[in-house]
Formats: sequence, C-alpha cells, structure tokens
Amino acid sequence: MSFNALPAHVWPRNARREEDGSVSIAGVSLPAIAEEFGTAVMVVDEDDFRSRCRDMAVAFGGGEHVHYASKAFLTSRIARWVAEEGLCLDIASHGEFLVALNAGFPAERIAAHGNNKDHAFLHALVSNGVGHVVVDSHQEIEELNAVAGSLGIVQDVLVRVKPGIDAHTHEFIATAHEDQKFGFSLASGSAFRAAARAVELENLRLVGLHCHVGSQVFDAEGFSLAAERVLKLYGRIMDELSVGEEFHILDLGGGYGIAYLEKETPLDVVGVAQDLLSRVEKHAARFNVPVPTIKVEPGRAIAGPSTVTMYRVGTVKDVTVEDNFSRRYISVNGGMSDNIRPALYDAVYDIRKVNGLTQGEEIPSRVVGSHCESGDILIHDQKLPDDIATGDLVALAATGAYCYSMSSRYNMMMRPAIVSVKEGQASLMVRRETIEDYLALEV
Amino acid sequence: MSFNALPAHVWPRNARREEDGSVSIAGVSLPAIAEEFGTAVMVVDEDDFRSRCRDMAVAFGGGEHVHYASKAFLTSRIARWVAEEGLCLDIASHGEFLVALNAGFPAERIAAHGNNKDHAFLHALVSNGVGHVVVDSHQEIEELNAVAGSLGIVQDVLVRVKPGIDAHTHEFIATAHEDQKFGFSLASGSAFRAAARAVELENLRLVGLHCHVGSQVFDAEGFSLAAERVLKLYGRIMDELSVGEEFHILDLGGGYGIAYLEKETPLDVVGVAQDLLSRVEKHAARFNVPVPTIKVEPGRAIAGPSTVTMYRVGTVKDVTVEDNFSRRYISVNGGMSDNIRPALYDAVYDIRKVNGLTQGEEIPSRVVGSHCESGDILIHDQKLPDDIATGDLVALAATGAYCYSMSSRYNMMMRPAIVSVKEGQASLMVRRETIEDYLALEV
Repeated sequence: MSFNALPAHVWPRNARREEDGSVSIAGVSLPAIAEEFGTAVMVVDEDDFRSRCRDMAVAFGGGEHVHYASKAFLTSRIARWVAEEGLCLDIASHGEFLVALNAGFPAERIAAHGNNKDHAFLHALVSNGVGHVVVDSHQEIEELNAVAGSLGIVQDVLVRVKPGIDAHTHEFIATAHEDQKFGFSLASGSAFRAAARAVELENLRLVGLHCHVGSQVFDAEGFSLAAERVLKLYGRIMDELSVGEEFHILDLGGGYGIAYLEKETPLDVVGVAQDLLSRVEKHAARFNVPVPTIKVEPGRAIAGPSTVTMYRVGTVKDVTVEDNFSRRYISVNGGMSDNIRPALYDAVYDIRKVNGLTQGEEIPSRVVGSHCESGDILIHDQKLPDDIATGDLVALAATGAYCYSMSSRYNMMMRPAIVSVKEGQASLMVRRETIEDYLALEV
Repeated sequence: MSFNALPAHVWPRNARREEDGSVSIAGVSLPAIAEEFGTAVMVVDEDDFRSRCRDMAVAFGGGEHVHYASKAFLTSRIARWVAEEGLCLDIASHGEFLVALNAGFPAERIAAHGNNKDHAFLHALVSNGVGHVVVDSHQEIEELNAVAGSLGIVQDVLVRVKPGIDAHTHEFIATAHEDQKFGFSLASGSAFRAAARAVELENLRLVGLHCHVGSQVFDAEGFSLAAERVLKLYGRIMDELSVGEEFHILDLGGGYGIAYLEKETPLDVVGVAQDLLSRVEKHAARFNVPVPTIKVEPGRAIAGPSTVTMYRVGTVKDVTVEDNFSRRYISVNGGMSDNIRPALYDAVYDIRKVNGLTQGEEIPSRVVGSHCESGDILIHDQKLPDDIATGDLVALAATGAYCYSMSSRYNMMMRPAIVSVKEGQASLMVRRETIEDYLALEV
C-alpha cells in the first residue's frame, strides 16, 4: 500500500484522502483544523467512536452488556456519547466518577473498579447510586459494607477474581498472573471467601463475578479459558451460598485488541463475541449453572481508532549511524508528553503526511518529539518518504486510547487541544492547556 | 541499617527521625504535613536544595559555571531559589522559559536547549535577552539568525556537539551515541560546519561548544573523554575560524548521579569537579588552546535528593505467588501518575514509614499505586516490615527529579500538592490539582 493511502482498519472510519491530497476526517480538512486550533491537536471522529459503541453493543447483545472503560479516554463529551449510545461505563477512580457524574452519566449504569478505593470514593459511589462496585480486597468488602450501612443502602457488588490465565499464551497458569495487585485468587480459595463474605454482610448484595485477562487480546480463547475457571466458582457459589436470581453477572473485562499498524489485523468483535458467548453457554451447561449475563469492558477497542494526533513537522535532520547507514530524524511539536506509549510500552503507530501527497523515496526515519530527552521517540524505526519537510502536517492514527489520558506536561509543554468532528463540523472538546493553567496552581 | 533509619545520602539533608518515631524534615513533622495538606504530597527541603546549589557552585568555581536543568523540577519558587543562590538556568522549552521569566529569573543567566525550537520560542528567547541559545540543527542556525536580525540583536550561541562517548562504558564509540536527535556530529564534520556557519552569520556570535554524555554518571571519566574530543574541535575552531575572546565556553552538560538506594553511593561532586577540571586543563594544553570556561548542567543532582513523596497506605494484601512464596502488596494513594519512573525506567526508590517506628519482620513486598493498571508499581520487590498497615504514612525519598515534572493525571487522579519546608515552617508551593482544574479545560 502506498504511503499516501490510509489503512482503513487503523484510521478513523471517516478519514479520507481528498482530491488536493490532504486528509479529512468526517468531511473536515485536517489542515483546516491545524489552522483553526493549532498543533499539536487530537482529532476525534465522533461517528467512528459512536459506531464502535454500537458494534460492541450488537456483538454482545445490547448496551447493558458493554461497559466503556473510561480510563482509556474520558471527557464529559465522550461520557455523553457513551450514555447516548446506551452503553454502561467503567470508572476506576474518584476523579473518573466525578467526570462521569458531571457529564450526567446515569450512576446506575456505572461500575467502579480500583485496588485502593478510599473511604471518600466508596462513600461517593454508594451515595450517588453507582450500579455496582467491583470489590478487590477483603478490607474493601468490610469498609464498603460499613459505608453502605451508614447510608442505609444495600450495594450491589461483583467480586474480582484472578483466574490465573495468560490471555496471550492461552494457558492456565498457576502463578505468574496471580502476582499482581488486582483481585482475589481463585486457586487459594480467597475468591470464594470474598463471595461468601459479601453474601453474609447485610449491606452488600453479590450480583456476580469479574475477571480480566489482559490487553490487546485478539481471539476468544483466553476469555473462554477465564470464563471456564470463573464459571466453576460461579457454580460453587450458587451451590453453597444463599444467592438468588440477583446473582447473574459474569464480567469478562476488557482487552479487545486493535490494529496500530497496517500489517496488523484488529480483533473481529462480532466473531469473538459469538465464539465467546457460545463457549460460555457450553461451560455453563457443563457446570450445570444458568447461563450468566455476560459483560465486557472495552476501552481501547472503542476509543483507540477514533482519534488521530496531528503535529507540525519542525527540524529535519539526517544522522549518519554507520558508514553506509543514515537515519532521518523528523521532529514534531509534541512527543512523550502527549503520547508516552512508545517510551513506556514500545508502542508502535501508523504515521501519514496529512497536508498533501508525498512522492519521495522511502528512507529509514525516526519521528521524535520536542522534549529534552533522547528517549522522546514517537516512531522508532520506519521508512518514510524523504519529501516530508519542515512545515508539513503529519498525524499518528489510533491515538484515542491511553494518550491524552496518560498525558503529562513534561518540559512545561502543555497538553494539546482535542477537537471532535462530525458531518463536516469541527467542535473544540477540550481546549489547549496554557502555561497559565500551570501557574494557577502555584501559591 | 535498620528500616527505621533514614540513609543520609538518599534522604534530604534535614530529614530526622524524631523521638516519637515519626520523621520530620527541616523541623516540620511529616504527619503534620499530611494532616494539613493531605496526601499524596511532595515535601521539598528548601535548605537541602539550596545547599546542593552552593555545593555545585563551589565545586565548579562559581554559580556562573552551573546551569540548573529546570526540566528536572521547575516551579516559580524553585527558579527563585536558583537565582538567589547565584546559579544559571537551563530551559528546554518555551513553557520552561515562560515559568522562569515569570519567576523573575534574569534572562541573561538562562541557556536555551531544544531539538525543535519553533519560531515563537526563538523569538521569545532573543527578544527577552536570553543568555545563550544552544543551537541543535543547521535549520535552527539559519532561523535564529533571521529572528535575531529582525530584532536587531546579535545572539550568543553554543553549538551542541555529539562527541560519540558512552559515559557508562567510558568508550569512544563510533556510532550508537550518534544515533539520537540532539546535536551535530563531530565525526562527520557537521559540528565544525555548524560552528563555521554561526561565525559567518552576522546576527549570531559563537561563544562556545556544548555536549552531554549521559544520565546518572558517577565519575569524571566520561565527561573527560567528551571534553577531550570536543576540545580538539574547539582548537580547530580557534585556528580556522575568526573567533575572538568571546569564544570561551565548554559546556559539559548534566548527568551527575545521585543515590536512590541505601547501597548506592552518590557522585562526589567536589572530587569529580576537581578531576574533571584538571583533565580539561591537560587536554587544553595538549591541543594548545586556552583553558575554556567550563559549564555544567546538573538537574537531578540538585533537585533529586531534596524531595520526598508521602503517601497514605490503603489496601494491604498478601498474594500467594508460589507454593512457598507469598508477596505483600501495599497500595498507596498515588502511583504512576505522580511517579512514572519505575514504570518508564525501572527506577528504584527508598521507602520508609514516616508516622512512627516499625518493629515487624521484613517480608517480600511490593508497593503499588491506585491506578487501574497492573504495571502501576512504585517499589517492585523489597523486604518491608510486616507491621506497615492501612492508614500509615510512607514516603519515597529522592523524588525531586523527573517525578512532578513528568506527572500526569492518568485515571483522573489529580497531581499532589508540593510543600516546601525550612526552619520549622511548611509553605505550600504548588496546590493540589482538583477535578475542576481538568473540567476548566472542557468546552
């Protein structure tokens, strides 16, 4: 595929190469966005985001089965899109809960995660009528019960289970995946004890179990293995504890993989959902339990592909690496402050010139940011056309998830603006940070 | 050493264990700070910071030789401390320059770095009378000359040279260290060409050369090797280009190592400075050039040990990792948002309980944050007393550098407050971020 193409499985659904060679999203020209809002800027394709919400809802049988994982990318406007598309919401901190409430997201459709929920957070959850709390420790079960009791409320809870599954190798593992902070161990009996205690306490109501097997998973196998293990516990709870019809949820967490590069294939949501749901039915039959209500928690799979980050090219420098090997360094006006993922996770991205076509020869290149750190790299090693020049606009695709949400202001480089586009209209969602925003924190 | 001790080479100089078992810094009780300002909170020992400024100045022969690298930790108050101690300042972005100017830092004592300085930044630098600009590309040289010309100013510049030195192996290296975004290659002749062009252009004045060899360096060897190489270029410039006495600076950059753990030894600043200065004299004699004015750019070595980050312990959970091995997970109310370095660089820290003594047995432990991510780890693997309990206060030492400056609000967990302490008084420096600070950016 030519460098001038936009891989449809990586770029937003409404991204197009226009006749003048520039790129538009939802009918809005990216160069025009750069002109109006400046760079660096993140551009969110609203219909792409919404359509992925709907795809997930269809795949899993309705929006009540799908909790958007807000940690991936949360703004008030995004929360409203999720609400309007009929999905539920996952939050993992007091702050995320406040943003969701501020957006008017119905609290009863919110689930709350967290390995270290403090008293104020638990109180806010219960008093605002959160749908359910995913309890993560024996301490939390006791404290949540006390909080709920003080408010005269019986709080629905899920118990988070560590199933001991490595989603990437499709193996039951005895140990390694237990060695993390989240959840109750299935193997040790801790998960059953947590469920028993939740049933026993009068201000909690156990409505189901939760597990999470990994990130960037591309098939149903790991989810199915986890479901098999957790359903065995599910059956034991139904047999041995006094639970009724309220106990009906099996939340299989997130981790649905997306394509970051042209050569990658995104997860087939419908196929995986069908595969997964049929396997859950079989496991349920084998353990002689009713088929539970399945819930999933996609974040990246909804937000990731909806968004691109557009930068202005600054310095272009050729560096002789070895006698017969030279690398071009292309600097852009952003970097590890707006996208820490390449530095933190060795993440890779698709980059394209968006203010016109390229015709250059493709040469070894590296795209770097403007930070005072040699590790400030956005694209580590890729062949890029040699006619990309200072002043050009380039964009990285699939930056919706874990970019803005993990952004810093390292080197006092302020956060980019976020613009949403839809049907030919651009609308500022989050304004660019300024140095005054930082200085306002100083005393 | 007992867990109740505070390793003096890691903790702030005025940190003490009080009679009641709690820790104070500069006579201010950390539990009292937690009470007044909440947690998580960063506490900066002002006299520690200032004394390390003075130590550097003494070691290198005066404050004019020492540029504090503001990227490590910059607030207006910190900039004022640096100014009052007579040091110079390094900035690496337009934002850092604005914060420094806002603090009243004298522009003529500021040096400006950056691989991708845009027109607005260059204009701000020249028009505000910045001391010198460290030019980093041939493009920048031309643009800076144009900007300076438009303002009727002749701008002092250093040329940033890639000397091809690996400070950690003490080797001249032909290639690897050239493969990065900063500076002009010495080996290819690019650095000499940059210097020649700077001399040629009428609105620039070449005042010296700059190089930087690495981070967390613990001896003079790497700096000396770099100085040797750069001095050869320095001599060639004096021989072949029409420079006069204004050409006199050799800036050897930063990278002075500090101790993060009890078992580590910090760099001996005075010893390394003496060693380095005498080697530079020898190299200069060998190349038959006048001994240049040496400049250095410590950031971490000044800011790092001055500061601790204090958290409140939340959930404590024992996880069975293998049949005969269990690990305690201690959750605190912060994490990768206020300290990304363990996740990003496998960085290690010294942690102590600060609200009283411990007497427990030391068991394998991991200190984790409150983020919805299993990689959210502050202390990966250390034996900690088993009587650290929910509600206790713990602090990580040597968090002054690259913690707040790289902080995010991942999971909408807002940034901690920063409090400076001096002679028994605590003073809020930067207030805690709130969710309203984020919401104010929304449109």
